[in-house]
Amino acid sequence: MFKLLFFFAVLILSSNASVQDFCVADLKGPESPAGYSCKAVTKVTVNDFVFSGLSAAGNTSNIIKAAVSPAFATQFPGLNGLGLSAARLDLAPGGVVRTVPFHTHPGASEVLLVVQGSITAAFVSSANTVYLKTLKKGELMVFPQGLLHFQVNAAGYSSVAYVFFSSSNPGLQITDFALFANDLSTKLVEATTFLDEAQIKKLKGVLGGTG
Amino acid sequence: MFKLLFFFAVLILSSNASVQDFCVADLKGPESPAGYSCKAVTKVTVNDFVFSGLSAAGNTSNIIKAAVSPAFATQFPGLNGLGLSAARLDLAPGGVVRTVPFHTHPGASEVLLVVQGSITAAFVSSANTVYLKTLKKGELMVFPQGLLHFQVNAAGYSSVAYVFFSSSNPGLQITDFALFANDLSTKLVEATTFLDEAQIKKLKGVLGGTG
Amino acid sequence: MFKLLFFFAVLILSSNASVQDFCVADLKGPESPAGYSCKAVTKVTVNDFVFSGLSAAGNTSNIIKAAVSPAFATQFPGLNGLGLSAARLDLAPGGVVRTVPFHTHPGASEVLLVVQGSITAAFVSSANTVYLKTLKKGELMVFPQGLLHFQVNAAGYSSVAYVFFSSSNPGLQITDFALFANDLSTKLVEATTFLDEAQIKKLKGVLGGTG
Amino acid sequence: MFKLLFFFAVLILSSNASVQDFCVADLKGPESPAGYSCKAVTKVTVNDFVFSGLSAAGNTSNIIKAAVSPAFATQFPGLNGLGLSAARLDLAPGGVVRTVPFHTHPGASEVLLVVQGSITAAFVSSANTVYLKTLKKGELMVFPQGLLHFQVNAAGYSSVAYVFFSSSNPGLQITDFALFANDLSTKLVEATTFLDEAQIKKLKGVLGGTG
Amino acid sequence: MFKLLFFFAVLILSSNASVQDFCVADLKGPESPAGYSCKAVTKVTVNDFVFSGLSAAGNTSNIIKAAVSPAFATQFPGLNGLGLSAARLDLAPGGVVRTVPFHTHPGASEVLLVVQGSITAAFVSSANTVYLKTLKKGELMVFPQGLLHFQVNAAGYSSVAYVFFSSSNPGLQITDFALFANDLSTKLVEATTFLDEAQIKKLKGVLGGTG
Amino acid sequence: MFKLLFFFAVLILSSNASVQDFCVADLKGPESPAGYSCKAVTKVTVNDFVFSGLSAAGNTSNIIKAAVSPAFATQFPGLNGLGLSAARLDLAPGGVVRTVPFHTHPGASEVLLVVQGSITAAFVSSANTVYLKTLKKGELMVFPQGLLHFQVNAAGYSSVAYVFFSSSNPGLQITDFALFANDLSTKLVEATTFLDEAQIKKLKGVLGGTG
Repeated sequence: MFKLLFFFAVLILSSNASVQDFCVADLKGPESPAGYSCKAVTKVTVNDFVFSGLSAAGNTSNIIKAAVSPAFATQFPGLNGLGLSAARLDLAPGGVVRTVPFHTHPGASEVLLVVQGSITAAFVSSANTVYLKTLKKGELMVFPQGLLHFQVNAAGYSSVAYVFFSSSNPGLQITDFALFANDLSTKLVEATTFLDEAQIKKLKGVLGGTG
Repeated sequence: MFKLLFFFAVLILSSNASVQDFCVADLKGPESPAGYSCKAVTKVTVNDFVFSGLSAAGNTSNIIKAAVSPAFATQFPGLNGLGLSAARLDLAPGGVVRTVPFHTHPGASEVLLVVQGSITAAFVSSANTVYLKTLKKGELMVFPQGLLHFQVNAAGYSSVAYVFFSSSNPGLQITDFALFANDLSTKLVEATTFLDEAQIKKLKGVLGGTG
Repeated sequence: MFKLLFFFAVLILSSNASVQDFCVADLKGPESPAGYSCKAVTKVTVNDFVFSGLSAAGNTSNIIKAAVSPAFATQFPGLNGLGLSAARLDLAPGGVVRTVPFHTHPGASEVLLVVQGSITAAFVSSANTVYLKTLKKGELMVFPQGLLHFQVNAAGYSSVAYVFFSSSNPGLQITDFALFANDLSTKLVEATTFLDEAQIKKLKGVLGGTG
Repeated sequence: MFKLLFFFAVLILSSNASVQDFCVADLKGPESPAGYSCKAVTKVTVNDFVFSGLSAAGNTSNIIKAAVSPAFATQFPGLNGLGLSAARLDLAPGGVVRTVPFHTHPGASEVLLVVQGSITAAFVSSANTVYLKTLKKGELMVFPQGLLHFQVNAAGYSSVAYVFFSSSNPGLQITDFALFANDLSTKLVEATTFLDEAQIKKLKGVLGGTG
Repeated sequence: MFKLLFFFAVLILSSNASVQDFCVADLKGPESPAGYSCKAVTKVTVNDFVFSGLSAAGNTSNIIKAAVSPAFATQFPGLNGLGLSAARLDLAPGGVVRTVPFHTHPGASEVLLVVQGSITAAFVSSANTVYLKTLKKGELMVFPQGLLHFQVNAAGYSSVAYVFFSSSNPGLQITDFALFANDLSTKLVEATTFLDEAQIKKLKGVLGGTG
Repeated sequence: MFKLLFFFAVLILSSNASVQDFCVADLKGPESPAGYSCKAVTKVTVNDFVFSGLSAAGNTSNIIKAAVSPAFATQFPGLNGLGLSAARLDLAPGGVVRTVPFHTHPGASEVLLVVQGSITAAFVSSANTVYLKTLKKGELMVFPQGLLHFQVNAAGYSSVAYVFFSSSNPGLQITDFALFANDLSTKLVEATTFLDEAQIKKLKGVLGGTG
């Protein structure tokens, strides 16, 4: 009797082999609007679903004393198509700037978890209202999709946060880099930001923009 | 100090190179239920996001005195996966017929904008209620997904409208062509439309149907 | 005049040839999170949209006196990307067990239709409430996405049901097979199910598990 | 020790009481684009998830010798928001017409299962290709979203099918009723269908249309 | 015989009265994440699906010589839940600024149609690449979801464009207003934008910000 | 001139007041399949977007030495409709059991982040393959939607993890509670799990089940 049950098990096991429970990214296959192509299930291992790249602090030896380390589907292929991704924020102490500057994620909402230190975070709504809070370790804050937000170290020592997104491909557009780190002409930046020419040229210089 | 900030900029620029903000259609790659494959970002230019094909009037030298010019993802690859597409309607004056006949878009809702002349448009709901209006230049009308609708020239001169869809692949099924422009047997058309045999044969003849 | 109309028909026919109304699965092409690649429309025939594999009873000559025959996109390629799939359940009479045991569909809700006999079915909610009913021929029952449910023959003769899913790739996870038909160590199964070691070893033996 | 485990159970049970596994339609509450409001979980019983209304044959004592009996969220509240619904088709024998005439479901794809007799079914694509097949008992056919399709009795006796949709609110637009069973003027119907005036007036008469 | 068909028509008409083809916004009912509540179908008229508010030019007698007039679900209730909305852009000639400044739509992609004059438009990707083009009348340009973009008058006279969104609630966040038109402290703006204090204070003054 | 710009700012501010960037849950309003009703924007404060309830350890003084503390939309209203939620897992050391037992989330995929200690986690696919890994602090693991998974403390001291879901309402179904903590008859549990009657009765006793 148990033998028959075993045969049934074998049957189910094989018929299920074709079910797509997940779609681990094959970074070399064609991409579609829904994400990367799927790696063959026979080549998938548990390591596709585990990511160690956010264990260590990012390098904050830069002028903004901050690092953003992404774990999107490109870095963490097991996330592909599952509607989730992550990143680690390291914010060093000291200096005027120790911040992840104003940015948006065009394709996802975000939840932030402070795991060390204290972080002042805010987002701005379409109605230009600022939602600002200084968060302690263990606190969460949500940033609705596509809205401008920032994070600043509020502790006298290094702060660390992990953020999670509602897409495996959330995107990241840092406002300053979008405005100043490319070849958009100073004249057009001036006309579309109301900033002074000198200010624009200064930041273009800093961020490597031209024009 | 600025040098460090610049290094940070370079870092961010390269880490972001893998983000998929868009998926310009590669018409030769495999298609998925979510649309065409994505062209390599390195080959994408601004021209993928611009479409000039609707600038000129379509050819209305035909019996219905009308032209429908599509800008779906197939014609305008930058739309692929972005949930939007467009078309231009040209409706010539004179004659009894100068109309886009009854049709549906199986995969999208539609908004119409009159840019020249005047157009009488209507859709019919599942409850068979007719929502009919004669629109002037600058007016908008929305046609909910999948419902039968039509547009007729209401001006004594050429009218032009642009329509926009909630999918980059809205589909287009013109009722008369679906019923009469193929090899579905007259007997089956009769049984499934209640139309008279003579009427069916006449329209099959006009529209190139057989059977 | 009709000739012109015919030309218009030809025009529309060709411009529409690129519209994607469906995406019949090409089982050999790359998969995306949205499903299989699409077969070329020129190779699609009506047989891609028809499936005869559920016409005959599945083989119930096994210990559970039951058979589950799937018609997912893998078996029935026309379903790919359309948000629907199906399966047939055959439940033989007699014996203690004549059941589709506790299982879930990770990616879909399900509607069951009894077409022969009588079936006792139930699902359990997140609040652990049991929704249990004995269904007669012609009755429907819905099982919300991802929740544990089962079907048991309630007739003295063979019962048959067809089930339909809200995805072309609903998945199927039979709890007993997930727990006992693999190499997960007895110790871990014990720690994560509260079952006794002897019970676990017995079912591992029956279902072909090791460890 | 078991007492503590029991306390844990109670804890989990209460924390889970707020989870929304399903959203049984409250037909009297406000509707949203996502469907009906949810009935309070405390008032939900298994009967909300079971529907008996398709057990008996619909009344086919009419000119088309056919009946369509819906089990959408309005009739079967447990389906609300779950992406599934159903209907029963009864097709009587004899007469010229014994058919579900050409129609579309604006918001869903459909799978048909023949449970008695034999049915000739077809859909027409955007490219006006007809996909036609005569189905036997136990066979399935899928009709992609929004496309025109019909079903005709192919047996010398009553045929019965159940159809399932990829939405709890698929909609149903029968072409003849949309064209002729309302107050759309004969002139506009003529201009937008190419049908003859006499044909239109005849069908308006039959189907109760005016104008 | 026709009488029976008529009865069938009546039957279908009433069974369909409960189908939700659309969900015209009831601005006074509760909102859900899917949009506004639906107005009762019996109160819906064709005017809910028509919008005349974009027929006339917006008022450009302001410093930016521009006007943005929205037709979102709030202004045009028929759009609610249909995945589409619109806006009109008026760009006056003369002056340095005659532009819709850098902004994003957090919840939608956008297609722009130039209907008068000429417009220079651009968007910036996550990789900080600028996609810039000067568009003529009748040309379309698409702006992928959530990315920064702007429009500038490129003609010596007034230019007009209509834009269409892939959501009935696309949102609109103008970068300058988000940064300077609220009470976010100058110190935090400085730390999160790298702009000089004087520049920030100047724009806060202009745009009515404090702090 | 700046005064005019200010007027423009005011104009934009008021026209944007109606945009729905977020939908903070009003727990007392009607629910829809898309989530809770939205709280009036005028009553929303930053505290709706911040959650402190996961800062402190959950109570692990129970037999499983574990606690699961949810931050779903019900607990953290700012998440409503944004496609994200969270929970905290506390796993105490010692004893045989110190685990979150086998469970599923019917409506979401999950990413786990270890913030203290070490955790052995696994999920089982539809093909009954086990994907098992022992994770260290700072490591991530993803569990695809709806699949059975568990977490066990692998450290000699307390371990802590935060998990994030791809829905604001992921659901939680703990297999043992679903099977044994309700009134489903022992006979039916036996028939649908293959477990021995004694085992079922024992666990029903422990978990407070009856029947």
